[in-house]
Amino acid sequence: MQRQRTIDLNADLGEGFGPYRIGDDLALLDIVTSANVACGFHAGEPAIMFATFQAAKARGVAIGAHPGFEDRAHFGRRPLPLSPHEIEQIVAYQVGAACGMAALAGHRITYVKVHGALSNIASVEEPVARAIAKAIRAVDPSLVCLSLAGTAGERGARAEGLISAAEVFADRAYNPDGTLVARGLPGAVLDDAATIAARVLAMLEQGGVIATDGTFVPLSMDSICVHGDTPHAVGIVARLRQALAEAGHQLAAFAPVTP
Amino acid sequence: MQRQRTIDLNADLGEGFGPYRIGDDLALLDIVTSANVACGFHAGEPAIMFATFQAAKARGVAIGAHPGFEDRAHFGRRPLPLSPHEIEQIVAYQVGAACGMAALAGHRITYVKVHGALSNIASVEEPVARAIAKAIRAVDPSLVCLSLAGTAGERGARAEGLISAAEVFADRAYNPDGTLVARGLPGAVLDDAATIAARVLAMLEQGGVIATDGTFVPLSMDSICVHGDTPHAVGIVARLRQALAEAGHQLAAFAPVTP
Amino acid sequence: MQRQRTIDLNADLGEGFGPYRIGDDLALLDIVTSANVACGFHAGEPAIMFATFQAAKARGVAIGAHPGFEDRAHFGRRPLPLSPHEIEQIVAYQVGAACGMAALAGHRITYVKVHGALSNIASVEEPVARAIAKAIRAVDPSLVCLSLAGTAGERGARAEGLISAAEVFADRAYNPDGTLVARGLPGAVLDDAATIAARVLAMLEQGGVIATDGTFVPLSMDSICVHGDTPHAVGIVARLRQALAEAGHQLAAFAPVTP
Amino acid sequence: MQRQRTIDLNADLGEGFGPYRIGDDLALLDIVTSANVACGFHAGEPAIMFATFQAAKARGVAIGAHPGFEDRAHFGRRPLPLSPHEIEQIVAYQVGAACGMAALAGHRITYVKVHGALSNIASVEEPVARAIAKAIRAVDPSLVCLSLAGTAGERGARAEGLISAAEVFADRAYNPDGTLVARGLPGAVLDDAATIAARVLAMLEQGGVIATDGTFVPLSMDSICVHGDTPHAVGIVARLRQALAEAGHQLAAFAPVTP
Repeated sequence: MQRQRTIDLNADLGEGFGPYRIGDDLALLDIVTSANVACGFHAGEPAIMFATFQAAKARGVAIGAHPGFEDRAHFGRRPLPLSPHEIEQIVAYQVGAACGMAALAGHRITYVKVHGALSNIASVEEPVARAIAKAIRAVDPSLVCLSLAGTAGERGARAEGLISAAEVFADRAYNPDGTLVARGLPGAVLDDAATIAARVLAMLEQGGVIATDGTFVPLSMDSICVHGDTPHAVGIVARLRQALAEAGHQLAAFAPVTP
Repeated sequence: MQRQRTIDLNADLGEGFGPYRIGDDLALLDIVTSANVACGFHAGEPAIMFATFQAAKARGVAIGAHPGFEDRAHFGRRPLPLSPHEIEQIVAYQVGAACGMAALAGHRITYVKVHGALSNIASVEEPVARAIAKAIRAVDPSLVCLSLAGTAGERGARAEGLISAAEVFADRAYNPDGTLVARGLPGAVLDDAATIAARVLAMLEQGGVIATDGTFVPLSMDSICVHGDTPHAVGIVARLRQALAEAGHQLAAFAPVTP
Repeated sequence: MQRQRTIDLNADLGEGFGPYRIGDDLALLDIVTSANVACGFHAGEPAIMFATFQAAKARGVAIGAHPGFEDRAHFGRRPLPLSPHEIEQIVAYQVGAACGMAALAGHRITYVKVHGALSNIASVEEPVARAIAKAIRAVDPSLVCLSLAGTAGERGARAEGLISAAEVFADRAYNPDGTLVARGLPGAVLDDAATIAARVLAMLEQGGVIATDGTFVPLSMDSICVHGDTPHAVGIVARLRQALAEAGHQLAAFAPVTP
Repeated sequence: MQRQRTIDLNADLGEGFGPYRIGDDLALLDIVTSANVACGFHAGEPAIMFATFQAAKARGVAIGAHPGFEDRAHFGRRPLPLSPHEIEQIVAYQVGAACGMAALAGHRITYVKVHGALSNIASVEEPVARAIAKAIRAVDPSLVCLSLAGTAGERGARAEGLISAAEVFADRAYNPDGTLVARGLPGAVLDDAATIAARVLAMLEQGGVIATDGTFVPLSMDSICVHGDTPHAVGIVARLRQALAEAGHQLAAFAPVTP
């Protein structure tokens, strides 16, 4: 018996800058149900945000603000020495900017997912997770906070009274404690479309992930995070979507625009 | 007989960056009724925006977003080659960011005034003025657009259905066509507190300015723009406020926060 | 009878930033004899400059500083309102930075070619061309200035006493006055490898280009500018190099490192 | 008997950006003998570098490159997560840029002193100090490396074969191990002109500093670091210079331009 019939696929999008692009945003927008859009700090900029929001709107894809550290040169992947209070401010700024830009593009931000090093920190430091949640709540308390399942990110969002949604990764191996196997380690990143599809189906059926040591780790799963930075990656996601549909799962945004 | 008993004083504030400050923001916030706060493109940044919004809130001062070109090195004072569509996007981004940050600080943005070269262009190019107005309307149609009295900025805002407010400068000489005398020219900038106070009182009484050639130029006046980048400048503004009060004018924000 | 037996191929390289890349730098470095390397203003950054200089050194490819306007968001392709004096300063800064970084990578900058909008302006405004040349001469008077053949860029460099080298474009159509046909116009950019190779061979034989109206425009040609931003583009350059070799032309840097 | 009759006063200068200034650069340039000039990463920019180098040249003041982390928002005062190899690159870039700009201004960089958090790290991590020294040596092996006396900065510079110069602070208290008392602690920063002048004279006479516990810490002293970010601070430096002169010390750059 399947535990879940409706699921969301989310991906990071709009991560270009000026003349640069990462991945094929339009191809991904045809597959995913939620788009996490960079807000001009770690990547993205007004023009790309606008175009991405418009394209998402045209495809009925939900949009989330995807704030990060202000560090284009390292794509927001390095931890910067900011206090929780400063993090609160950069999140409020970026979420506000995304809401403004979405309005201009005729769409609406319905959730927030933090990026890169900021996400890594929020996953383990609850004061940071709460700072992020406070900023989101101040800008718009109806925004859903999308966090890595089972982490401080989830707890922080709930502690601040936000609606929290949990994501798991389609293509990453998990440790027995529910954290991700570090990227450098062997087997940390899955790369085979069939394996990934089968794994995600199993995760949905069982309501958790199988860790590297065989342990079952129960995790809530409102969304599955996918990546699309290479043509190969887009193919994996397309295959996953097809497998989900064939298995009877309905693909739908976890935070849809409501009237 | 005086034409107006209530008037607003607005000033550009929060224009520091990192370790840098321009003017004495707190001193000015004790005098003005509306604060135009830089949004991180030509000046300002999340931390300074937050602090300025909080200080304005504490003093009952209304706050406006003050978006500009992304050019800290020239303080947004140089015209950059952006299309009206691109200007729409940078304005939506900055106004959204300001709204988000204001919410975090417990205050609310009630108006928008564009900065520097962007303001100069909007004053003479109606397509740009309309692009700015479209962006503002998209983010929040209740935001008032503060423009230089009698310019394309005012017309563009109205044409897009925004509430428009007009400002005049306390310390600048006017040409017979209602434009400002260029800064470089002799007498363009007034510097004597008594002269400035007397001039503003006369402008309010007469409902317009006396141009350099003695012509009377009728102008609507919802706000008087003042400057505070030097201790001397702050003194001039304090004197002006006192003169206004003594003449029976009530100082109040043109776009107050309403419940 | 062939007019020239030795010729240089130059290309813009190192134009990535942070996580972003443009073109296949290593593939191009295996083909060209001179690499114009972005200096961190319109593109590039210390890490990419270092890696590109090292890779060029390993392949015996000459390196030039490729300074541009400080505008990553538009890749230095928009004219910014800088005075000749300010242009002098940004060129001196970037050329100096490139020389420092080249030294760290064990290589040496031997020439300078300005980028994008800065190049366009220098091609028609001799005061700007001279400002650029003054900056180059101040940093190192032995640096060669590579300019578009027949333009103010060439004249400005010579007027300031610099060694000037001239380039023509392999893949662009020319107007009868020796300027490039604007990109938007039909036939402005050539895209067929065989056509481009034949055209360049003819240009070298005849010492000039055939304009769109059939006119012959004599031009000095120290280098041929090629592009490599797509796999297809790299293929065109490889084919051109082969055609040049087969026709007996020797490929060599116009500004080699001398002991 | 006095140990030293010639001494240098150095100060950080050219730390403005765009419309912003820190301290009175011209007033300080009339007092110090060496100017550490920001290179556009933590502060400064081409125009300010040029103006500062010209003003230093006119006054016979030696100039040093003052590279820092690329973090204007925090003035280079926060440690950023860069590897020694990356630090090597940003130092080579900045020192090269400073050399280029100095040449344009008709002056010459003769030394390097790293800034803020980069200096703090180099003072305790010898691999970082050596990375900095390698970069300096690659750009110009005749450049002197100015470091905090008795720290890893000094050792790293010497280990890489650079000429090393040591500085002490005029206005800071020292711990018994020769490190500075942290800024937050009581008495860490001296603020009285007469006390500072007397203290520096004693340091020069004794060849070291008296630590907070009364211990004498012998330190080499090629230069005394002073600050000028307030009018009061400039007054302290002027008083110090006068006291040094009256005590028979000759003020002279530790790294003068030699023909």
